[in-house]
Order: sequence, then structure tokens, then C-alpha cells
Amino acid sequence: MDPGEDLAWMRAALALAQRGLGNVWPNPAVGCVIVRDGVAVGRGWTQPGGRPHAETEALARAGAAARGATAYVSLEPCCHWGRTPPCTDALIAAGIARAVIATRDPDPRVNGEGVARLRAAGIAVTEGVAEAEAAELNAGFIARIRSGRPLVTLKLAATLDGRIATASGESRWITGEAARRAAHLLRASHDAVLVGAGTAATDDPALTVRLPGVVPAARPGPVRVVADGRLRLPLTSVLVATAWQTPTWILTLPGNDRARIGAFADAGCTVMEVRADATGQPDLAEGLRALGSRGITRVLAEGGGTLAAALLGAGLVDRLAWFAAPGLIGSDGAPAVGALALAGLDAMPRFRRTGITPVGEDLLLTFTRAE
Amino acid sequence: MDPGEDLAWMRAALALAQRGLGNVWPNPAVGCVIVRDGVAVGRGWTQPGGRPHAETEALARAGAAARGATAYVSLEPCCHWGRTPPCTDALIAAGIARAVIATRDPDPRVNGEGVARLRAAGIAVTEGVAEAEAAELNAGFIARIRSGRPLVTLKLAATLDGRIATASGESRWITGEAARRAAHLLRASHDAVLVGAGTAATDDPALTVRLPGVVPAARPGPVRVVADGRLRLPLTSVLVATAWQTPTWILTLPGNDRARIGAFADAGCTVMEVRADATGQPDLAEGLRALGSRGITRVLAEGGGTLAAALLGAGLVDRLAWFAAPGLIGSDGAPAVGALALAGLDAMPRFRRTGITPVGEDLLLTFTRAE
Repeated sequence: MDPGEDLAWMRAALALAQRGLGNVWPNPAVGCVIVRDGVAVGRGWTQPGGRPHAETEALARAGAAARGATAYVSLEPCCHWGRTPPCTDALIAAGIARAVIATRDPDPRVNGEGVARLRAAGIAVTEGVAEAEAAELNAGFIARIRSGRPLVTLKLAATLDGRIATASGESRWITGEAARRAAHLLRASHDAVLVGAGTAATDDPALTVRLPGVVPAARPGPVRVVADGRLRLPLTSVLVATAWQTPTWILTLPGNDRARIGAFADAGCTVMEVRADATGQPDLAEGLRALGSRGITRVLAEGGGTLAAALLGAGLVDRLAWFAAPGLIGSDGAPAVGALALAGLDAMPRFRRTGITPVGEDLLLTFTRAE
Repeated sequence: MDPGEDLAWMRAALALAQRGLGNVWPNPAVGCVIVRDGVAVGRGWTQPGGRPHAETEALARAGAAARGATAYVSLEPCCHWGRTPPCTDALIAAGIARAVIATRDPDPRVNGEGVARLRAAGIAVTEGVAEAEAAELNAGFIARIRSGRPLVTLKLAATLDGRIATASGESRWITGEAARRAAHLLRASHDAVLVGAGTAATDDPALTVRLPGVVPAARPGPVRVVADGRLRLPLTSVLVATAWQTPTWILTLPGNDRARIGAFADAGCTVMEVRADATGQPDLAEGLRALGSRGITRVLAEGGGTLAAALLGAGLVDRLAWFAAPGLIGSDGAPAVGALALAGLDAMPRFRRTGITPVGEDLLLTFTRAE
């Protein structure tokens, strides 16, 4: 087989997989292309909610043409009965002759067993095609399986000097319309959006994806999560008032007034108690594990500065999405990142650049944690 | 004539002109290429100190081959006797048949008169080739002629969240070695470097160009300028101790102790008194005019945050050179830009992006003032 051709088809599968990001938790976002005689006879991707799986979708489209064909799958096919039958069985039953797999599924119920099943059925298997790209695409799912917590991307929209509002609190708008649209697209690719109590109370944000057509009707958009140790979020806030339409989860400390907790629950919010960290705020590592245990794989942390600092200080920021506006507010403005109390420059959280994207007059700079 | 060919030769002349930046004040940095039958027979650029001029240099190299040739000059040739004879006369005497000129010289002694002299001598003149590029290259010279003050580029090296040091003052190094080299190159292309008294006292910087071979021996490197209202700069500082090798100019307020002023003068420093601004600091608009009157065309302001804020607040920043390091220090770190006391976001100084240059792990983002 031509490795260049394998890579090209796998990239097509990855592009399909991408469509699932933010919509398929607790499952991974997978793409599948069935190729016969150099022609794609079936394409599929994980459907909203995580089912049907990509392979099932692609095989249904390929029909009889799948016999003798090659299946390009961005993640190792499952081999266990979940809410759907194993995809390995479906590929075998369809008569697939060869399977190309980008990366293994770290889920202990699969992790190599899917490949073994295919091989045992006489299917030729090639692994590791576009592996790094596939691992990045499913970094959230992989993080949840391996560490119990979702991948955390810290998104900030700030001036060049790192300010997110003027001294008087004016923040609309620092970035331009194109950047704000890009931020909504970014939100749409995440399972949950996380903000601090201060931002939730001050801005009264909706934290929904406001881009027509982007969120499939089958899903209400990312879960809104507020880190709010003392339940300061007003019951009249947009996040509470719309909790029946789009889930609102609250990470809070133990010991809040039971009646107030009940009022949040009555409004449709999910209140999750986590222990306090050293600063007396909800411990975010524990909070993220609580999100992971509920199936969340990708969290977009949107600020404010206090939450950003808490996440950075706890080493919980895996990716940065930094919208830089071409203006300067000065040191009397609100900082994008609160105090980190670094012992020295050696202790500074450092990142590795992964992308530079001009977005209108602004720039989107993306980074991954430097190891 | 082929406009594409004209543009290509003019860009070659502009590349030569670039070599003079930072080395030729009070004169403009000019490049000249003499082309005959599609071949460059002579090249020249303004020499260190501003003389000889580019045209003289190129004609000397072309010799007899200049007869009937085309001269590409990035700025209108001078037509007045300064310390050198007029370049128009030299071009005419050499028998140049055609002159292509990027932009006119705004100096009232020239400004169209150079073109007129050439035409009167029977030389065909084409104007406006790569005009915007030429105007940008000589933006400093043009600013000095038109407004009396040099072009000001604010250079900052900061984390993504706009910090230039930790809370304890640690700032070495926020950016990487490649960015620091690029910053020295940037310094080399400026006539003067400007810092505030706080930075000068705290960092005790040399503010020299430390890149072997970059600064020709004929010039000692950019003038070091310190805005220091109360002459806080220690007489033992590097800037004072080396003032005989590389000029150190001090912008200060009237009324300082005469003996202390005398001590600075004895050490080789030039002390320039300017009036106080509303905050009681040296008025930077007046200070810059004082630099302009001494021939400075390009100033690189290197901080710290207080100076940056003063320049921005007074509307004196024409260009930004922002080195962004992929790390975060948090709000307890030192801000790149001090308080601006903006009335609102509408009042925010805004810039237009002109360049994105990855420099090692850092980014150099360049901007020009948004009109």
C-alpha cells in the first residue's frame, strides 16, 4: 500500500472525526472512510451523543461495496458491547479486507483488543497512520481515560498587554467580531465551558454557542460549569434561568445552605460539591475529575483572571487559545491572569506554540503545555 | 518600461537603503541602483553618518557605464548644497538617461525640486514606484521633517499576559535567545534608544548593540536616551560610565542641582531640560522634539511600563514591536504598560498589525498606529 495514500485517506477520516468534537462525549470523536479501488464508498463520523459510531455509519453508506474494501478509522474500533454492538464485529461482517487505524483506543476494554480481533478474523491491519494528529484530536478523550480529568483549554481574549477589561469593567468589545465568532466555534468543539463565579456574576453570560447551524439540534451545546464556592451565582442569572435548556453545573464547596442548594436544583442546575483548595476555593483538580466522571472530555475555561490563575497554578491548563487584540489598556485594567505568586521565572507556566491564526484584526495564538 | 522590472529594481534599491537605518541620521537612508541594459552596473547606499549619499556611491561604482543608464533611487535626489554637492548634479553629469524615484524628499529644500532639476536636464523621470514601501522605510526621516519629532517604536518583550518581570523583579530572561538577538538587530536600526529612569536605575542596562559586525566602526551605535526628571540615574551606572564611547543623553526637568548636572556633563552625558507634563515627568512630546532637532529620526522606546504608558498616553507611539513569550507570569508581575487611565474602551490606543514573525519560541508582532 502507498503510505502517502494511506495518510491522505486517514486525514479525510480525521476531518470527519473533527465534526464530533464537543458533541459526542463521553465517547471519542471518530471518523471512518471506506475505500475500494481508490474510491471512498462510505464515510461516517461519531453521531451527536456518541452513537452510532463512525464505522457503523460508514459501513451503512458503503453497503455491499464494503466487501474487500479498506476501512480508515481514526481510532481503534471498539470490541466490547456498550450501548451499541462492537464495531470490530461490524467491520468483519461487512467483509472489510484491510483496516488502517491511526491510534489505539486507550480504554482498557479496547486498547489493542480491537486490533487483535480484526487480525484474528483475517483482516490486514496497519496502525499508526497520522497517529500524532489523531492523538491530538482525541486528546480530551485520552486525558479522561488516562487521568480521569478532561483536557483543559484556557481561552482568553485580551489586549497585547494582557487586559480583559478597563478599570471600570468595560470589556465589550476588546476583540473584533471575527474573533468573537471564532470563540463561539471554539466553544462548540468543547463538551463544557468553565467560568469563575466572579465572571458569571459580573458578566451574566449565556455561554451558549450563538452561531446558527453549528450545534446540531440533538445536543443543547456545551455544559456550562461555574466554579462558585459560596453559590454567589444569582438565581436570576441567565445561567440558572436557562439550565433546563442547556445544562448548568456548579462546582461548589461543602457546607452551603441546603435551601439555596435546593433552589439551584429546582432551577435545573446540577450542584457538585468539591473540597476546598489551599486558597479556600473549590479544588479545581477534584472539580475536573468530577466532570470527567460524568463523561466530559474537553473543557474550555473562559476566565476570568482568578479562575485562569487557579487553573495555571494547579498545573491544569493543557492548551491555550489566546485571542490577542491590537490594543493596549494599561496596568489599571483587569488582568487576564490573576496572581500566580511565582517563586521565580523558572516556575513560570510555559507553553509551546502550535498555531498563529489572524482573525480579522486580532490574532488567535494557540499553545500546548510545554513538557 | 516594464513596471514589473521597475518595481524589482526599486526593491533592490530599498534593500540597500535599509542598511543605513540607524546609521545615517540626520540624513535619510537611501539606496540607489544604476541599471544599464538590464544589468546593475552600480549600487550604493547612504554611508554611516549620512555621507556620501547613495547616488554618489552608485555612480562611482558604475563609472562610464552610467551614461545612458537608468538610476533607481529610493528617495528623490537632493538638489541643494549641504556638506556634499547635489546628487541631481552628479546624476546629470554622469549622463543618466532615466531616473526612477520611489518617493519625494519632504525636506523643503528638495520636495519636487530634485525631480524638476533632473527633468530640466533632459532626464526622463518616473515617480511613485514602491512609494508606500519607501515611505515606510524613511518614516523616521519623514516624521522628523514634517512634525519635528522622530518616529517612535515601542518595543516590549513580555509574557502573553503582558508582564515584563516577576513580582520580585526577575526578568532575565522572559524571551529566548533568538528574540533577544532580534531585539539587538532592531536596536541597531534605530538612531536612539529611549528608557525611563526606573528601568535605567533598576536594570543598569548598557543599551548597546551586542551583535558582532552589525554596527559599523564609523558609528558608536544608537544614542542612549534616559527620561529622568530628577537625575536619579547613578553616576556609576553603565550608561554614564560609557557615555564617552556611546552617547548618553538625559531628558530631565528644569531645576535640578547644577553640580549634579555638571557631574553628568563631565562624564560625557548630554543633559537636556524639558518642561514637566501633567504628571510632573519630563514632557515626552517636547523631549522627542529636542531629539528631532538634534537630528534623531528613529527612536526605539524600550520601557519600562511607566515610560510606555506615558508615550501611549501622549499619543507618541507610532509603531509597536511586541515580543511575546509563550509563558504567563500573572497579575502580581510587573506590567509591560503602566496605568493609562482610559475613559473607556473607545479611548484605547489601537494598532494595525503589520507583521507576525516567529522568533524561536517567541513571536515578534509588529504594528503601526491605527489612524
